[in-house]
Amino acid sequence: MKTQEVMRSYAQLKDFSQAIFKSIGCNEADALLAADALVAADLRGIDSHGVARLSGYVRLWERKRINPTPDIRIIHETPSTAVVDGDAGLGLVVAPKAMQIAIDKAKQVGTGWVSVQNSNHFGIAGYHAMLALAQDMIGMAMTNASALVAPTFSTERMLGTNPIAVAIPAGEQPAFVADFATTTAANGKLEILQRKNAEAPLGWVQNQDGEPSTDANILKQQGALLPLGSDREHGSHKGYALGSIVDIFSAVLSGASYGPWAPPFPAYVPMPENMPGKGLGHFFGAMRIDAFRPAEDFKQHMDNWIQRFRNAKPVAGQARVLVPGDPEREIAAQRMEAGIPLVESVAKDLTELGQKFGIDF
Amino acid sequence: MKTQEVMRSYAQLKDFSQAIFKSIGCNEADALLAADALVAADLRGIDSHGVARLSGYVRLWERKRINPTPDIRIIHETPSTAVVDGDAGLGLVVAPKAMQIAIDKAKQVGTGWVSVQNSNHFGIAGYHAMLALAQDMIGMAMTNASALVAPTFSTERMLGTNPIAVAIPAGEQPAFVADFATTTAANGKLEILQRKNAEAPLGWVQNQDGEPSTDANILKQQGALLPLGSDREHGSHKGYALGSIVDIFSAVLSGASYGPWAPPFPAYVPMPENMPGKGLGHFFGAMRIDAFRPAEDFKQHMDNWIQRFRNAKPVAGQARVLVPGDPEREIAAQRMEAGIPLVESVAKDLTELGQKFGIDF
Repeated sequence: MKTQEVMRSYAQLKDFSQAIFKSIGCNEADALLAADALVAADLRGIDSHGVARLSGYVRLWERKRINPTPDIRIIHETPSTAVVDGDAGLGLVVAPKAMQIAIDKAKQVGTGWVSVQNSNHFGIAGYHAMLALAQDMIGMAMTNASALVAPTFSTERMLGTNPIAVAIPAGEQPAFVADFATTTAANGKLEILQRKNAEAPLGWVQNQDGEPSTDANILKQQGALLPLGSDREHGSHKGYALGSIVDIFSAVLSGASYGPWAPPFPAYVPMPENMPGKGLGHFFGAMRIDAFRPAEDFKQHMDNWIQRFRNAKPVAGQARVLVPGDPEREIAAQRMEAGIPLVESVAKDLTELGQKFGIDF
Repeated sequence: MKTQEVMRSYAQLKDFSQAIFKSIGCNEADALLAADALVAADLRGIDSHGVARLSGYVRLWERKRINPTPDIRIIHETPSTAVVDGDAGLGLVVAPKAMQIAIDKAKQVGTGWVSVQNSNHFGIAGYHAMLALAQDMIGMAMTNASALVAPTFSTERMLGTNPIAVAIPAGEQPAFVADFATTTAANGKLEILQRKNAEAPLGWVQNQDGEPSTDANILKQQGALLPLGSDREHGSHKGYALGSIVDIFSAVLSGASYGPWAPPFPAYVPMPENMPGKGLGHFFGAMRIDAFRPAEDFKQHMDNWIQRFRNAKPVAGQARVLVPGDPEREIAAQRMEAGIPLVESVAKDLTELGQKFGIDF
C-alpha cells in the first residue's frame, strides 16, 4: 500500500521553512539561508534531510541547544585555513558561512580549508560543497554526526554516518557532485524500510552483538549501521577509515565533540557525558581550478571525462551508467516542475509545527 | 600446500632494489629514495606493491616509458598549490618529491596541495602520506592507475583501483594511517587467490557481462574489479564516486591521462589510444596541524580518539577493534625483526633480475 502523499512546491516549502526559522528567532537573512539549505534536500530527493527534520531543529531550539542568533567567528587562521566557532547556531547557517570563508581563502591563495566546532546538523553535505561551483572551484564538505555506526569488529556504535560531498565543475556537462554517507546505507534508507515494515538487505546493519541482521528497526535495540563495505571481507575497514577521517577532520581538528561523544540530533536523547569538545564539527574545502590549470582546459577535460563514463557500456537491464550527481539533478528538475511529494506523517508534522507558530502549512 | 618462502631482511631488499635502480640509470639519491618507497610496501605487508613489482619497473624502463633522470619541475603554482610534471620519472621518486612540495607550501600558508602529471606507478600511497607526520602535519596521497574497475552498472573497466591514503599524527599513540584501494578488494588480494587456485568471494569481481563472479582469474577474460560496496544495494556507487574523485584530482586537475586512458603498468600491455593527458597522475596534500589548533592539543585528543576506538567492545571471536594503520605497523615491526618472506616465484624473478645486471640477490 502506497503511503498517502501531499504535494507542495519548492517555493512553498522554502517559504514555510523560512517562516519557521524566523519564528525561533533567526534574522531574515539567516532564516532564508537555512531554508535554502534545508529544502535543497527535498528538492534533490534526499527526503530524510529536508523538511522532515524541521520540527527536530525546533525541538533542539526549545532545549536551548540551538542558538538562533549566533556570533559565528573565526577563532584561528592562516592564509589557507580557518577554525570557525559556530556558537551553537543552526548548522544550516553556520555551514554555508564557513564554506564562504573557504572560498574566500581559495581566491587569495589557491585553496581554503575550514574546520568548524560548536555547530549542529547542517542538512545535506552536497549543498555546501556545490557553493564552490559558481566560482570555478572544487568544493568539499563533510560533517560528523551522532554515533550510529559500528567500526569493523565492534559491537559499539562509535561513528555517525559521516557524509562526504565533493562537487567538481564541468563545462557543457552538469557538474560532478558526489554526496554520500560513509556507511553502506544512509539512515534515511532504513527509515523508508521502517515505514514500509520491510526488511533491510543483509550488510546494512548488525544487532547488538555484532551479528548480521535484516531488522530495519535494529538501531532501536542497540544495533548499528555498518560502514561502507558491510563486512571485513568486503572492505568495511575502508568505510570505517573514511568515517573516521571525516570525524577527525570535522571534530578533532576543530575542537568539536568526536566519535561516540558527538551530540545526538533527536532532542529527547540525552547529551553524552564527558564531551571532549564543543557541539558537532564540519570540514569544508575549496580549491580554485586555475590554481592547478586554466579553468577552461579543466572543464573541457571534465566534459570528456563525464561523457566517456556516461557512455560506458551498461550491464543488461540498465539503460546507462550514471555519473555522480545525475540522479539528484534529475529528481531536482522534476520536482521543481511537478512539486515535492511529502509522506502523510511529514505533512501532519509540518501542519502541527505551523500551528504552534501561527503559520499556515 | 603452502608456497615455499624465501626470507630476506629489510636492509637486503632495500640495498638490492637501490642497486637495480642505479643500474637503470638513477642517480644514487633517487635510487635510494625509490628503494625506500618500494620496500616500505614489503615491510608493511602489502606484498603486491613491493619488490614483486621491481622487474615490472625495469621492463617499463626497457620500453623507454620510465625516464631514470627526470627533470621533475613545478609547471604552475599558487601559495597553496602546485602542478608538477614528473617527466616520466619513476613514481617512486616523483611522488616523495611532490609530497615535499606540498609540505613546504603547508609550512608557508597552512596547507599544500600538489597534483602531478606525467608520472608512473608510485608504490603504496601510505608511504607518501606518512612523510607529513614528522612535520606535525596531516598527509594525503592518492593516484590513478590503469583501468581494472567497472563503475556501478558498467561492463567496461573505466577506473584503476585508485587508492587513498591519509596519515594523521597522534601523541603517545602511533599515528592513524589509512591506506586503501577504492575497490572492495585490491588487485593484490586477487593475485594471492590466483596463486592458491582459490575462488574470490562474491562481491569482489564481475565477468565481462557485468554478472557476479567468483573467478579470481576473471580480469584476464575482460572481467572487472568492483568498486568498494560491491553492488548498488551495498553502496558501490559510493566506491565508484571515490575512485572517480581520485582520478579527477590526480589526473584531470594535473593534465595526466585519466579514466580508461590511464597508462597500464604491465609493459606488454599496449598504451591506450588517444590519451587525453601525460602519464599517470597523483595528488598530494599536507595540512599543518597548528594551522587549525595547537599541535599538542590535537595530539592529545587524537590519543583519546585512538584509545577510545581501540577499546570499543569487540564482536565475539575478535580480540579487539583495530585503528587504521594498526595491522601494517604490527607487520612492519615483526618483519623488521624477523625478515620479509617472499614467495618462491618472486624470489626467482628477483634472482633473474639481479643476474641481468650482475647483482647478487
